[in-house]
Amino acid sequence: MKHPGFWKMLTVATCMALLGCLQAQELQGHVSIILLGATGDLAKKYLWQGLFQLYLDEAGKGHSFTFHGAALTDPKQGQQLMAKALETLSCSQDIAPRQCAELKDQFLQLSQYRQLKTTTDYSALSKDIEAQVQHKGLREAGRIFYFSVPPFAYADIARNINSSCRPGPGAWLRVVLEKPFGRDHNSAQQLATELGSIFQEEEMYRVDHYLGKQAVAQILPFRDQNRQALDRLWNRHHVERVEIVMKETVDAEGRTSFYEEYGVIRDVLQNHLTEILTLVAMELPHNISNAETVLQHKLRVFQALRDLQRGSAVVGQYQAYSEQVRRELQKPESFQSLTPTFAGVLVYIDNLRWEGVPFILMSGKALDERAGYVRILFKNQAHCAQSEARWVAGRSQCLPRQVVFHVGHGALGSPAVLVSRNLFSPSLPAQGWQELEGQPGLRLFGCPLSDYYAYSPVREQDAYAILISHIFHRRKDSFITTENLLASWVFWTPLLDSLAFEAPRIYPGGAENGHLLDFEFSGGQLSFSQQQPEQLVPGPGSAPMPSDFQVLRAQYRESPLISAWPEELISKLASDIEASAVRAVRRSGEFHLALSGGSSPVALFQQLAHWHYSFPWAHTHLWLVDERCVPLSDPESNFQGLQAHLLQRIRVPHYNVHPMPVQLRRRLCAEEDQGAQLYAAEISALVTNSSFDLVLLGMGTDGHTASLFPQSPTGLDGEQLVVMTQSPSRPHHRMSLSLPLINRARRVAVLVMGKMKREITLLVSRVGHEPQKWPISGVLPSSGQLVWYMDYEAFLG
Amino acid sequence: MKHPGFWKMLTVATCMALLGCLQAQELQGHVSIILLGATGDLAKKYLWQGLFQLYLDEAGKGHSFTFHGAALTDPKQGQQLMAKALETLSCSQDIAPRQCAELKDQFLQLSQYRQLKTTTDYSALSKDIEAQVQHKGLREAGRIFYFSVPPFAYADIARNINSSCRPGPGAWLRVVLEKPFGRDHNSAQQLATELGSIFQEEEMYRVDHYLGKQAVAQILPFRDQNRQALDRLWNRHHVERVEIVMKETVDAEGRTSFYEEYGVIRDVLQNHLTEILTLVAMELPHNISNAETVLQHKLRVFQALRDLQRGSAVVGQYQAYSEQVRRELQKPESFQSLTPTFAGVLVYIDNLRWEGVPFILMSGKALDERAGYVRILFKNQAHCAQSEARWVAGRSQCLPRQVVFHVGHGALGSPAVLVSRNLFSPSLPAQGWQELEGQPGLRLFGCPLSDYYAYSPVREQDAYAILISHIFHRRKDSFITTENLLASWVFWTPLLDSLAFEAPRIYPGGAENGHLLDFEFSGGQLSFSQQQPEQLVPGPGSAPMPSDFQVLRAQYRESPLISAWPEELISKLASDIEASAVRAVRRSGEFHLALSGGSSPVALFQQLAHWHYSFPWAHTHLWLVDERCVPLSDPESNFQGLQAHLLQRIRVPHYNVHPMPVQLRRRLCAEEDQGAQLYAAEISALVTNSSFDLVLLGMGTDGHTASLFPQSPTGLDGEQLVVMTQSPSRPHHRMSLSLPLINRARRVAVLVMGKMKREITLLVSRVGHEPQKWPISGVLPSSGQLVWYMDYEAFLG
Repeated sequence: MKHPGFWKMLTVATCMALLGCLQAQELQGHVSIILLGATGDLAKKYLWQGLFQLYLDEAGKGHSFTFHGAALTDPKQGQQLMAKALETLSCSQDIAPRQCAELKDQFLQLSQYRQLKTTTDYSALSKDIEAQVQHKGLREAGRIFYFSVPPFAYADIARNINSSCRPGPGAWLRVVLEKPFGRDHNSAQQLATELGSIFQEEEMYRVDHYLGKQAVAQILPFRDQNRQALDRLWNRHHVERVEIVMKETVDAEGRTSFYEEYGVIRDVLQNHLTEILTLVAMELPHNISNAETVLQHKLRVFQALRDLQRGSAVVGQYQAYSEQVRRELQKPESFQSLTPTFAGVLVYIDNLRWEGVPFILMSGKALDERAGYVRILFKNQAHCAQSEARWVAGRSQCLPRQVVFHVGHGALGSPAVLVSRNLFSPSLPAQGWQELEGQPGLRLFGCPLSDYYAYSPVREQDAYAILISHIFHRRKDSFITTENLLASWVFWTPLLDSLAFEAPRIYPGGAENGHLLDFEFSGGQLSFSQQQPEQLVPGPGSAPMPSDFQVLRAQYRESPLISAWPEELISKLASDIEASAVRAVRRSGEFHLALSGGSSPVALFQQLAHWHYSFPWAHTHLWLVDERCVPLSDPESNFQGLQAHLLQRIRVPHYNVHPMPVQLRRRLCAEEDQGAQLYAAEISALVTNSSFDLVLLGMGTDGHTASLFPQSPTGLDGEQLVVMTQSPSRPHHRMSLSLPLINRARRVAVLVMGKMKREITLLVSRVGHEPQKWPISGVLPSSGQLVWYMDYEAFLG
Repeated sequence: MKHPGFWKMLTVATCMALLGCLQAQELQGHVSIILLGATGDLAKKYLWQGLFQLYLDEAGKGHSFTFHGAALTDPKQGQQLMAKALETLSCSQDIAPRQCAELKDQFLQLSQYRQLKTTTDYSALSKDIEAQVQHKGLREAGRIFYFSVPPFAYADIARNINSSCRPGPGAWLRVVLEKPFGRDHNSAQQLATELGSIFQEEEMYRVDHYLGKQAVAQILPFRDQNRQALDRLWNRHHVERVEIVMKETVDAEGRTSFYEEYGVIRDVLQNHLTEILTLVAMELPHNISNAETVLQHKLRVFQALRDLQRGSAVVGQYQAYSEQVRRELQKPESFQSLTPTFAGVLVYIDNLRWEGVPFILMSGKALDERAGYVRILFKNQAHCAQSEARWVAGRSQCLPRQVVFHVGHGALGSPAVLVSRNLFSPSLPAQGWQELEGQPGLRLFGCPLSDYYAYSPVREQDAYAILISHIFHRRKDSFITTENLLASWVFWTPLLDSLAFEAPRIYPGGAENGHLLDFEFSGGQLSFSQQQPEQLVPGPGSAPMPSDFQVLRAQYRESPLISAWPEELISKLASDIEASAVRAVRRSGEFHLALSGGSSPVALFQQLAHWHYSFPWAHTHLWLVDERCVPLSDPESNFQGLQAHLLQRIRVPHYNVHPMPVQLRRRLCAEEDQGAQLYAAEISALVTNSSFDLVLLGMGTDGHTASLFPQSPTGLDGEQLVVMTQSPSRPHHRMSLSLPLINRARRVAVLVMGKMKREITLLVSRVGHEPQKWPISGVLPSSGQLVWYMDYEAFLG
């Protein structure tokens, strides 16, 4: 027997010409590839060519192959359709046309059409494969089922394969799945569970064809091979922003039945752009070819992603889209689609490496150019002493510094990796990549091409061909595991939900979009740079905006009432708190602020942290109005909210922060630990006359405030400053400031927001001083000022 | 009598032609201006012209003037010199030459030379003024003494004025002082005290002529008039950097006797550029013409400035400088000056508005162009959906956005205020400022001039003329108060001290500087972008750099010793701590770290906060090794150092931070409060087996560690985990972990740095286990690992 190395030296063509090839095939056995949906678009466009490529690359290296094109169509018609799909197969340029024709012939002989509809069809296929293998005296190595079919067909096919077409012992099974993998977390989870009950995780190959794009596949190897240069740079201290962009000029015409169901975020951002994000952001494993470690590092990126808010995205829809949907899906004239065809999303990663670095994801149809790229722009942290005219390109640190993984198209027209010459000289695999020829005059990302070290692949390869090869070689790191998929849906689903009923901005399409889709970020929020111009298509009329209204001043329960839209209300309250703080610090050197938990104050905390530069935090003491008997680190703890949304973003000295001592000696609110008394003592010791400068309260739908609930035996009167109470809802045990203590404050602000509060607001406006029934009615500072802050929904209903 | 308004309507020329002017002068009295140093450079170049301008502007408005040019020169020679200085006086363009000649004549008649040398000279001057005033039947309004003399002459002149030349009751005195105002904080303080004992603060006008530059004087009015647009933008969320630059092409030739004593930082940065910094950064007062409020706001900026470190600056010296000094100051051939003629300094302002925004101050002689500007560059927070070629200048938010106060010279050649058109349309005072004519092809700060709203002064005015007018009108906000001056010196002196013996980088001068002086910032440190090339002039030979050495591993007291240069040592220790943390969290979910105070750990804290992205802070508990019995907020408290340098920059949950309870019930370390027992209980409750994962210790020159001092009756043995001890130095009372507790740790790291520690290091290497004499010798973890970290200075001496 010949030494295996010998076979590697034979070119495919030479091998095919020798009968000895069979000998090689005997070494590793026979592989059957079943392409389901063999006559569909994807198969015609990419998959058959990818399989042919696999055959060209691998047939000489020890495996024999058969290719089964399968579909629901009857054999005769299917055969014809498949033959047509196979007509266009081509070889790479280094194979002579005559040789290519020969190879194509061989491939066609190995490829057969099969109708796969019923369980019987699958059993028959299985038997045929076994017979064929036996007949040729081969060993079966394994079977690849490529699902190029709509997702609703997955389950049936999967069950049929499992029950009737699994290979025998010793041979492997691989199933290749094409997106969409669900349209939100629930559906993805359901699909995953279904498939998971049928296949092993290791048997499933979920394709994200972007991971087969040469520039994308180069991200990890590039980071690995340039560790030394990147180690210092690849972090928030040096990266200004990361842009992950896929722009299309085409629109969704002809595909609206799919597109209307999915839209751009599900179609591109949730999968392709998110995968790229994880490749850029993950902590680099020591060994990047260990798929398991890569996966773990990816998952850690997902864990660190900051939750998306409605304000994290801008969405648009090209003008002709709704009309296309009406036409293709037979919708009535009045139908307006809300499906976005353009989205820009701002993603932050809350870990120490990336905190504060904006990751901008953008994709859309009907844009001005077709282009895909990942651009890492580094901060300009230089100052150049010479006048600008004297800066030398490629050397001045004041000119832009960036690394770009150019996925394809765009002005460059091909995949490439670009590194600014003033950054570092990159190392790329000498075998696959070569320096890019200069195209005079070409500018990319603000600089002439000559400012970059630019590399492109020696041989441009289609993503599917690469992925099919990876499937064959069991390189699982190029595919989406179930965990990875679900983590991505967990991240995207809340945004998708919140956008479900939002009208996207209409854009004309192409170059005419002008600056209409440009967007900006500030304070973690995205917005279009330009005001919406006159509607291109009349929309349903937008809701009144906060700025259309003035802050309303009135009386409520004989105290001042400030009412406004939420945004303005919070802004007013924050300003009032700052004013109190400044006054207090001027008066006494300290400001004692007692804060409530809950969701309404979160926006307030953000407002205070972000916009109030002059707030005297260094002189502010923070107290809690009430606390749940849970560890302070529990997500349910009020303190935890304060910590997450305020403390981490301001500079209050540690010793000025006064969490309620609900946990002492490792127990929660044990009576003998006297937590309430301890807190009262701390207040007495530090707050003059136990009179807080400001107490911020909320109001529950049952009229409770702080953790003082109706009929509470403690806290509504008496001497105690801090009390233990019982809440009707879980967790029941609470610690709370008492009404008498609250009423000693110089100022009490009650914040009430949302339409849930409408009824109680109305009710409380009419009742007298009845704290036993409605504790909030007992809030009446003895010598201080009470002010009500209510948004219009709570107040006007 | 005519209505006063009438006089305003007369032009100066007309008024001069009318005898009625005397009537007007009677209204407000006579002003004597005494220019000391009347024949000097500054007087010749700017001051006489400024005084002439004052005369032109004011003579018709109710005051009469006389101008006394004074110097030490005898009357005859002085007269001649002064006459020469006055020859070049000119009028503004709107006055006809004939008229101008007439006005000049009048001014010359009012101007006389006087020798002012002795006290008698001053008395004589005073009597002459009185006689003159009386003779003309005028009332004396006041006297202005303009000190255009070297600072060593200040005190004498001041005393003479005070004793013999103060105006009588009802008339004011103003003394105008020219820099330098000292060369460090001490000398400035001394000078200020001296002057303060002679003059009232309100009598002194310290000139920083930059404040008279039209673009600089426009900073506050611009901020005021464009409040609405700037309010949102003028903060760390929007400003990327501020550059404050003054570049000169000239060198110091002919002035080295002054320059050698001062250098560029004292000459330009401490005064001009710092003043601009405060104008840009201060919280904008409601009323910007209230000098007192403006001063208070300026002072608050000084308070918030982050201390400068040696690494905050880069300095250079043009190649010819040392030779010029040798020649002009008769220094020996071997003399090499260390005086910087170029400096770049990175300033941070630690308040909520500016935190993290780099303020770059740069100035130098022998550079490639003469230019002065303040540039506020805004962050690019936009993403543009169209390809770059389609971005519309002035509209695209992706193009640079900046506000520039162009002080003068440069490519533009004149003072100007520039605002990017994609930012906002600014409002400037219509009277004094006009839109700048376009100069085709001119690019400024990365953009064509047409991308800016550009305004320049209608009439370009010299800074001194403006300031002399402000002195006359008592506009004190254009001058440097004593408080302001001293605050600036407090800020700059430590940097100047630390640079005193540093060799500046030598640069060739002019355009040949290339990128040699470009600098970069990272982690708050500045450094030149390029490596120092071969010395242009052979220097004293640079010290070995840390990177020239490897980390040395050895044994010390039979435990591992790691020794290196400080930077590498800290970096190694930080990595080791992170590794311990990761292991501990993996093992038990928590990492318990006990930290010492003092200065050595500061660099460690900074290293940890800045570079250790993967540090599991969320799972780390921080404990103190020892504490002084001072409030936690006291600058002497160990906790305070931990807070300032670590806690504020990482995300450790509040409840994972465990300061020592040295203050309870508002008293410090009272025995009956049992603080030590409390801390011990907290440790027992939270730390498994009271065994810290890592304890970081230091070693004192007396062999103490933690706060365990030689002969301590507590803490060196016994059962107690936490003890009260006595320090030989203040504050005497301390709380400390005990040796037995320390020795329970899994790992103990002892960090020893600096040559002060050399002797004790040597001594302790030789002694056995004698904790009573040298507590550090008692550190020997019973089942953990002890590692010594010593820098070369401590270890090798």
